[in-house]
Amino acid sequence: MFRHVVMFTWVAGTTEEQKAEVEAGLKELPVAIPEIRRYEVGRDAGINPGNHEFVVVADFDSVEDYLVYRDHPVHRAVIADVIRPILASRSAVQYTL
Amino acid sequence: MFRHVVMFTWVAGTTEEQKAEVEAGLKELPVAIPEIRRYEVGRDAGINPGNHEFVVVADFDSVEDYLVYRDHPVHRAVIADVIRPILASRSAVQYTL
Repeated sequence: MFRHVVMFTWVAGTTEEQKAEVEAGLKELPVAIPEIRRYEVGRDAGINPGNHEFVVVADFDSVEDYLVYRDHPVHRAVIADVIRPILASRSAVQYTL
Repeated sequence: MFRHVVMFTWVAGTTEEQKAEVEAGLKELPVAIPEIRRYEVGRDAGINPGNHEFVVVADFDSVEDYLVYRDHPVHRAVIADVIRPILASRSAVQYTL
């Protein structure tokens, strides 16, 4: 199993509507990209200061399937249309489980 | 279920031995802290530039169990003894699954 984990912070002034658009856009991806085995998104619970605000954990059978997801046009469209406009910072790791 | 995800980058010059000490120290935590339900560590696969180098994904039954882990002296000792000396940057999210 191969896992992709990515966290984001959003720019100041990002609205609840914009955050909801990110979540709605990402949640469509498992429908559009059958290589995704498991896909979870989560908002930070607000317990610890300095955290990132949002996380995606996505599981794939292989590196190759992750690359299909990474480069899939539906995914790239979500990034370009709803993530990039509010993106402040991004941290990511991909690893073999 | 409540999940803690944290990523690290290490300072320049960090040795393979130091990275292995982090992994060994963290892998002892599920033995010491029974509140941990699932605990995974992973090194970045090196596919994408700009990634963080290391990730921990830890699952708990509740926020309260996560807080036991966060503040547990065995965990704090791993942070102080083997993580902090090589820590360059850290990104974290906790969220309800």
